Amino acid sequence: MPSRERKKDGGIPSGVVTRLPIYLRYLTELQDQGVGRVSSAQLGEALSFTAAQIRSDLSYFGSFGQQGYGYDVDELLRQISRILGLNRNYVMVLVGAGNLGKALASYENFRRRGFEIRAIFDVDELLVGNYHACCVIQPVEQLEEYLRSNPTDIGIIATPGHVSQEICDTFVKCGVPSIWNFSPVHLQVPDEVLVEHIHLTDSLLRLSFRLNEQRQKA
Amino acid sequence: MPSRERKKDGGIPSGVVTRLPIYLRYLTELQDQGVGRVSSAQLGEALSFTAAQIRSDLSYFGSFGQQGYGYDVDELLRQISRILGLNRNYVMVLVGAGNLGKALASYENFRRRGFEIRAIFDVDELLVGNYHACCVIQPVEQLEEYLRSNPTDIGIIATPGHVSQEICDTFVKCGVPSIWNFSPVHLQVPDEVLVEHIHLTDSLLRLSFRLNEQRQKA
Repeated sequence: MPSRERKKDGGIPSGVVTRLPIYLRYLTELQDQGVGRVSSAQLGEALSFTAAQIRSDLSYFGSFGQQGYGYDVDELLRQISRILGLNRNYVMVLVGAGNLGKALASYENFRRRGFEIRAIFDVDELLVGNYHACCVIQPVEQLEEYLRSNPTDIGIIATPGHVSQEICDTFVKCGVPSIWNFSPVHLQVPDEVLVEHIHLTDSLLRLSFRLNEQRQKA
Repeated sequence: MPSRERKKDGGIPSGVVTRLPIYLRYLTELQDQGVGRVSSAQLGEALSFTAAQIRSDLSYFGSFGQQGYGYDVDELLRQISRILGLNRNYVMVLVGAGNLGKALASYENFRRRGFEIRAIFDVDELLVGNYHACCVIQPVEQLEEYLRSNPTDIGIIATPGHVSQEICDTFVKCGVPSIWNFSPVHLQVPDEVLVEHIHLTDSLLRLSFRLNEQRQKA
């Protein structure tokens, strides 16, 4: 395993962290299909990684595999779930009940993995008071008061860009330790607050870049 | 600049490609604010990269900056837009008109950048025939026929996971060169077809991993 990948603090490199959910997803598919064992070569082929990379990634979490025998799917899933923090539940609060916010609130996969949206807030008076996915949509002015009395793990921001920093500041001020940001803005947060961005346009631009690159080669 | 980052074929490393949309977004904000010049140090501070990394990234596209004088925001934006392929328009077709699909079809930012959803398909008879964001929702059985007579750059998959491979196969069969996938499935495509995934759950799992890691350190 290349030592340059190891972080100085003994933590797990971000590249490995990025791949763990991919392993989890594929192993869950295998488990659903009743597959009991899988080799690093099989995993590699299915996920377009090299077998060496898979062995290297999984070695960060102890020795799961046996030479020539592969990995036990159930055990590997259990270990990866534990490493990803899926042995507990997460309370989420969503701000922004537009189409995207509604899609997030309806997404069954999150709840199944232990991520539960407990409250939804919006600025739109026409939306406030409506039920969506088992939550009443509340006015955004009440967000701070709500967060003060309801400890929240993850604040979801699905608002237009021009208000997202303000919403983010409210989450941070009320002690929410992590932000899942869907707004097209680079949020400013203190070092200790974790942020995951889903920048849809960025993803689309990576696609147009590669389309363009391919066209120039052709 | 570290030579190991350079790809053998003279292409641009994926890490750099990933950061270009981030530069584009921030530089657009600066342009909107009327800022004319920006240094690599300023860019670095705003985006949490080192100035050296920014200089290295931008050097792939020629010499934009002048020592001690910084980058011309307009010129840098023009160059990055060109590199990202934004000097042309892209025709997109969306399959899946649930909340997520509707959110994508309504997203003004895409159209502004030249990405236009020209047709929407769904399997749900209750949705078919409805207008959404200027498109009539068409029955998914007509997807193949539509694609045969309407050249499409990007196929968007916002369906449940169990049908996404089939939709993907239809896109590929009809010569759509790239797929933007929102379904929680690792799609199998021929080498020449480009795929960008938005795996929402994966992003959430990276967050739970880091929350868990932080908690263990505390």
